Amino acid sequence: MNGAQAVVRTLVDSGVTACFANPGTSEMHFVAALDTVPQMRGVLCLFEGAATGAADGYGRMTGRPAAVLLHLGPGLANGLANLHNARRARTPLLAIVGDHATYHKRFDAPLESDIDALAGSVSGWVRRTSRSADAPADAAAAASAAMSAPGQIATLILPADVTWTDGAESASPVRPRPAAVVPDEVIADAASALRSGEPAVLMLGGSGLHRAALEAASRVARATGARLIAETFPARLERGAGIPAIDRLAYLAEFAAAQLDGARHLILAGAREPVSFFAYPGKPSYLVPEGCQMHVLAEAGDDIAGALAALAEVVAPDTRPSPQQPVRPALPEGDLTGESAAAVIGALLPEGAIVCDEANTSGLWLPGATAGAPPHDWLTLTGGAIGQGLPLATGAALACPDRPVLALEADGSAMYTASALWTHAREQLDITTVIFSNRSYAILNMELERTGATTAGRTARSLLDLSRPAIDFTALAVGMGVPATRAVTAGELAAQLRNALAEPGPHLIEAALPAPG
Amino acid sequence: MNGAQAVVRTLVDSGVTACFANPGTSEMHFVAALDTVPQMRGVLCLFEGAATGAADGYGRMTGRPAAVLLHLGPGLANGLANLHNARRARTPLLAIVGDHATYHKRFDAPLESDIDALAGSVSGWVRRTSRSADAPADAAAAASAAMSAPGQIATLILPADVTWTDGAESASPVRPRPAAVVPDEVIADAASALRSGEPAVLMLGGSGLHRAALEAASRVARATGARLIAETFPARLERGAGIPAIDRLAYLAEFAAAQLDGARHLILAGAREPVSFFAYPGKPSYLVPEGCQMHVLAEAGDDIAGALAALAEVVAPDTRPSPQQPVRPALPEGDLTGESAAAVIGALLPEGAIVCDEANTSGLWLPGATAGAPPHDWLTLTGGAIGQGLPLATGAALACPDRPVLALEADGSAMYTASALWTHAREQLDITTVIFSNRSYAILNMELERTGATTAGRTARSLLDLSRPAIDFTALAVGMGVPATRAVTAGELAAQLRNALAEPGPHLIEAALPAPG
Repeated sequence: MNGAQAVVRTLVDSGVTACFANPGTSEMHFVAALDTVPQMRGVLCLFEGAATGAADGYGRMTGRPAAVLLHLGPGLANGLANLHNARRARTPLLAIVGDHATYHKRFDAPLESDIDALAGSVSGWVRRTSRSADAPADAAAAASAAMSAPGQIATLILPADVTWTDGAESASPVRPRPAAVVPDEVIADAASALRSGEPAVLMLGGSGLHRAALEAASRVARATGARLIAETFPARLERGAGIPAIDRLAYLAEFAAAQLDGARHLILAGAREPVSFFAYPGKPSYLVPEGCQMHVLAEAGDDIAGALAALAEVVAPDTRPSPQQPVRPALPEGDLTGESAAAVIGALLPEGAIVCDEANTSGLWLPGATAGAPPHDWLTLTGGAIGQGLPLATGAALACPDRPVLALEADGSAMYTASALWTHAREQLDITTVIFSNRSYAILNMELERTGATTAGRTARSLLDLSRPAIDFTALAVGMGVPATRAVTAGELAAQLRNALAEPGPHLIEAALPAPG
Repeated sequence: MNGAQAVVRTLVDSGVTACFANPGTSEMHFVAALDTVPQMRGVLCLFEGAATGAADGYGRMTGRPAAVLLHLGPGLANGLANLHNARRARTPLLAIVGDHATYHKRFDAPLESDIDALAGSVSGWVRRTSRSADAPADAAAAASAAMSAPGQIATLILPADVTWTDGAESASPVRPRPAAVVPDEVIADAASALRSGEPAVLMLGGSGLHRAALEAASRVARATGARLIAETFPARLERGAGIPAIDRLAYLAEFAAAQLDGARHLILAGAREPVSFFAYPGKPSYLVPEGCQMHVLAEAGDDIAGALAALAEVVAPDTRPSPQQPVRPALPEGDLTGESAAAVIGALLPEGAIVCDEANTSGLWLPGATAGAPPHDWLTLTGGAIGQGLPLATGAALACPDRPVLALEADGSAMYTASALWTHAREQLDITTVIFSNRSYAILNMELERTGATTAGRTARSLLDLSRPAIDFTALAVGMGVPATRAVTAGELAAQLRNALAEPGPHLIEAALPAPG
């Protein structure tokens, strides 16, 4: 078989069975190879950012990498922002970047560019294959690297002649590096801090926010009085009725500082030291209170749930976790606002839902309104690069075809990768998208004040305004094959959301919110 | 004034008066500074690729750089593909990338990434400013670098604290490096080749495709019998009735080889050595015929028109250029095809039009059908990174508000940066977009054969298919505020194009073409 066929075969044997693709001429042999290995599912995306975001969503939900197939440097460039988010989420993800044939590169043809520089900026592992015979082993190594704990982006650069040259054989899977077991003395150090009687915060991140880890952490918190806090932007937070609840560290540094205030011990389990998302004049970037001692119970690549379970066995052997009680908001009537929209979603969120949350400022009320809904997963904008939500939903829905997916999207963010809706329609994915349409980059209107940019006037404000012209998201959705409606009252949103959730396949609801401030 | 105000002031003094912006928190002081320097026009784009492509169009038409304002690494990443095209076009362009405050970077906050690596991949000049007091001089140097012959991307990385710190003063403009005068002996060498009696090709690129250079080249060709050929993807080709006509080197290597066949001398004036766009199994990448001698008359940074004029004075002192005669196709009736659509455009193309051509396979007949139309400029996809046409039109229309702009767009390419339509509407730009909708990545269906990917079957073909679901471009356009119609016959296209051209402001016409093959 040729290099492409051997690579696809090897990837399938390594557990990589989905490929989000936006191919070009240099990837034609890879595309053709999909017909020879039917176990690999090819999913067409109309823009690379829609493909990489989908692979992120898929990897977050399955723990296995999806492949993305990208066309040379510009294709990788278009996918980079969502790869950045995936890197921050520590998602297992395999980027396959087609390149010119090895002998063609020296001619500096129009699409030639520095792929390696771009790949290096987001990948934990990068390799450029130069011989067809090496391609399968490189593919196996790439899949293994992507899956190695805690998960990372592995990028394999495949020149066109490597894919079309015959004589390759598929390679055996390579065992990924497993999560590291946390040593007993580290557990003992954390236990000692928790038993000191001084105020302690146990901060969780990564797989520390999955159910088993949350239950162990809840036992620790109940037994010791430690506060539980989640990282601000989890890759995947399991929550809802029956699962111990946890507040996320606030996005705004002022509020985050209040959450951590008074802590004498900060115990990190899969979370990083808390820092401000942006710098602001005269405000601190580093949020750990003075005099607070740091304890790293588990790093991202460690067995976080195992460490928390071990810790619970030491400090809370007889304590049970404290589950969230089932409670939902009443269905609101009247004006549609961020708050009433959140109540509608909290009232109707189905069991097992996967929520892809890129609602930004409009989503302020969502965590509270959905806390006691039936169990669900909450996926967030891990890297701050907007344009993630709609693609993330694509991947989550393909990963979990039996679960309903909700994409909660700010209007400004939705416009970065709106073509993901087309893939929602093409694959008939069970995704309900709610656009929080306030016709503004509302967060920037707030940030303009917070950064002290006092000279801002009409011109500056106009650069944050999306009302001229107003974007009709129902037209965009229908134009890409997704049925869509617009809600202007809370009651309309409830009726439309109920209908959308009841009917399989993709839907979009434009929630027309008041303009900010 | 603060760093941002001093930078904006300096840029305006340096001739940079347009800024295509997609800002975030780290750019708030730059945005606020626009209110203090009203000579800088801020134009909001909903995605960074729409901003960088617009700056490319602006720079191609004015010869002066526009600024783009981008938000950290992910913002730059989203703009990279069209920066790649601008790099290949040698467009003067100033990228301003906001970054975290200098003291904030070490905390590796979520949006932190390797901006410098990305910037280096497309820029001829990169600088990171670390002190507010240095920012204005860095801005002046950046503007100068962008404008230095032949034009390039200059990237200035501005940390947030550099922009908000007070005490900066605006800096004086820095004179850009002018185009180099070509020495007499180089002219003499080319003249000698042309007088040898052996078949010669004079290949033009860059500013060698503007009117004055074409007229000089035409004189040379008439006097010596040399063939004129243009580079395949010109940044800006001046053409139409009254201007000497020139064929572009074919995209397909087979046809390009035929165009160059038999040449014993290849004289390059602003063009690069012809190479194949992609590699294909068993086909040559390097297209210069064996035994053909290369002569570099003028490189990109040289005074190309001056060199051609000097050459004409030597070999064609008494010869006049051969202007294209005015001739237009008849308005076709009947079915809408790539050919009849081209005839409609050729019949109606207005004088002074700026054509942004990303019609790809559907555009095959356009050059022939428009060759004898009134004088116009033709802007092409210089770097092969699709998603350029709609943003390029934004910039061209802002650069030349008195000229009609036509964006001729393939459907697949249009979906990469469709949000550019919103800026067309917001700024009420006089842009008529024609979408060549064949519901396919038609070029890839062709490339699948050409690359010999013979195992391609149903799966591979489905990854090149845009018909499930069909995209309704009129809905997308109307959803973003651009009036739109759909043409299914040649007569409808003619009527709709005439109306769109007659009415100021943006319009979109979806030309429903037959599916390929």
